[in-house]
Amino acid sequence: MKLVKKISKVTALLRGYRKKRKSIGFVPTMGDFHEGHLSLLRKAKKDNDIVVASIFVNPAQFGPNEDYKKYPMDIKGDTQKASKAGCDILFCPDAGSMYPQGFNTYVEVEEASDIMCGKSRPGHFRGVATICTKLFNIITPTAAYFGQKDYQQAFIIKKMVKDLNIDINIKVLPIVRERSGIALSSRNRYLTDPEIEDAKLLYKALKKARGLITHGEDSVSEVRSAMKSILNKSDVAIDYIDIVCPDTLSKERVVNSRVLVALAVRIGTTRLIDNILVNVKN
Amino acid sequence: MKLVKKISKVTALLRGYRKKRKSIGFVPTMGDFHEGHLSLLRKAKKDNDIVVASIFVNPAQFGPNEDYKKYPMDIKGDTQKASKAGCDILFCPDAGSMYPQGFNTYVEVEEASDIMCGKSRPGHFRGVATICTKLFNIITPTAAYFGQKDYQQAFIIKKMVKDLNIDINIKVLPIVRERSGIALSSRNRYLTDPEIEDAKLLYKALKKARGLITHGEDSVSEVRSAMKSILNKSDVAIDYIDIVCPDTLSKERVVNSRVLVALAVRIGTTRLIDNILVNVKN
Repeated sequence: MKLVKKISKVTALLRGYRKKRKSIGFVPTMGDFHEGHLSLLRKAKKDNDIVVASIFVNPAQFGPNEDYKKYPMDIKGDTQKASKAGCDILFCPDAGSMYPQGFNTYVEVEEASDIMCGKSRPGHFRGVATICTKLFNIITPTAAYFGQKDYQQAFIIKKMVKDLNIDINIKVLPIVRERSGIALSSRNRYLTDPEIEDAKLLYKALKKARGLITHGEDSVSEVRSAMKSILNKSDVAIDYIDIVCPDTLSKERVVNSRVLVALAVRIGTTRLIDNILVNVKN
Repeated sequence: MKLVKKISKVTALLRGYRKKRKSIGFVPTMGDFHEGHLSLLRKAKKDNDIVVASIFVNPAQFGPNEDYKKYPMDIKGDTQKASKAGCDILFCPDAGSMYPQGFNTYVEVEEASDIMCGKSRPGHFRGVATICTKLFNIITPTAAYFGQKDYQQAFIIKKMVKDLNIDINIKVLPIVRERSGIALSSRNRYLTDPEIEDAKLLYKALKKARGLITHGEDSVSEVRSAMKSILNKSDVAIDYIDIVCPDTLSKERVVNSRVLVALAVRIGTTRLIDNILVNVKN
């Protein structure tokens, strides 16, 4: 596996592969690889000739009071894990080369960027759409791989790719969970032992929602109440619990078709998100 | 020359050329071809294996009270002219396929979009940046050609291409003028005979500025005053007269290096722009 830091170098490398008509699978990440990232890399390897992963903690997607400066970094560990998972090129640019002085072009998917996580993280999805556009232009992948844990992010990228006629196949892979049910996330590192216990309640609440819905509960407020009463057992501060259409992210009034149940909470100073897709039996 | 209306068809056509490693020159236009457009097409032909022009009157770059609905159209005439100038593919998509229902992704180059023409045309350059991103993704050109008459537009596209790592060479070609000095523009069609006389004052004012500057005048306000007194001889309503750095579009305080003198006026209901690059003798 090649570790590349310079944009011009990765561009030259990939130009060579494109000339040989190799398909390129791309996994954009912020590093600190866990099984979620590795599942994307393995799938990218299965689908493509060449796999590129990027590690870039993107300042444009962090708010002023968020964890940009303390975001976990482990390039050495990541290099080993990525190589083992089939990655061919690990692209790790620095912030100065991605956002040189005078940078001021942004890509924004309107509406979908202002709801759910966008409400409490203004500008976050603009940062995500902008960095993905840049990385897609640098890597020119055949397909790019995202995790379902960041469902809204994947939704926005798919919308952007469609709206801007970007010729890349966007694939979204299932959430990888610990045995305890906790969705894998780099931010889990921030949790203390008692906070880990609280974090388990997220999936518990999502499973409760799934149970209710699959047993015929069609009231959004009933489902949300049941989830809230699970989360309120501890020091979990709810940011949102939304039940939305998976294809539009618009809020459902009544649960009568396939839905996405998504939530965001704060446990101590750590913000965690999770979600589940639920099929409704008709 | 092939006339293509469908996005999927032009994509398939160009995929074929790319596989054969043909270089693709692209001229994005709103049609109603004059010598300005044709000079771009001829240069694109000189530089590349394949020339693609697009004709698309882009609703996203018109304000609510602007001339979107009456913008001149002459597909038949354009087809003949383009073919003669060396165009291989004329891409004429319809608005519904470029902006399908639910479209809501936009590209914006900040700062540069809010000055000069952007001041009186809010959203205009966002529309330009967005449609160019879409067309660039559809056509995947080696190089794209723009006219200097829309200097700010070309500036913004170059900035966007740099900021978003788009692998396209942007070329800006000189303004083509009538014998009278009037810069060629589709909007000249709107002018009545007496208005045409007024339109001649734009280049007269720009030449006056060039004369003063090359003879050592370094006061921006003196140059602007001299231009104003030429334009004020008639019913020309000045939108702006700006003397800016060609590399940043920032306003100059003193003229002591190469400058862009740019202006926008309204003659009757018609908005016209023009500009000139002036080298300062040191």
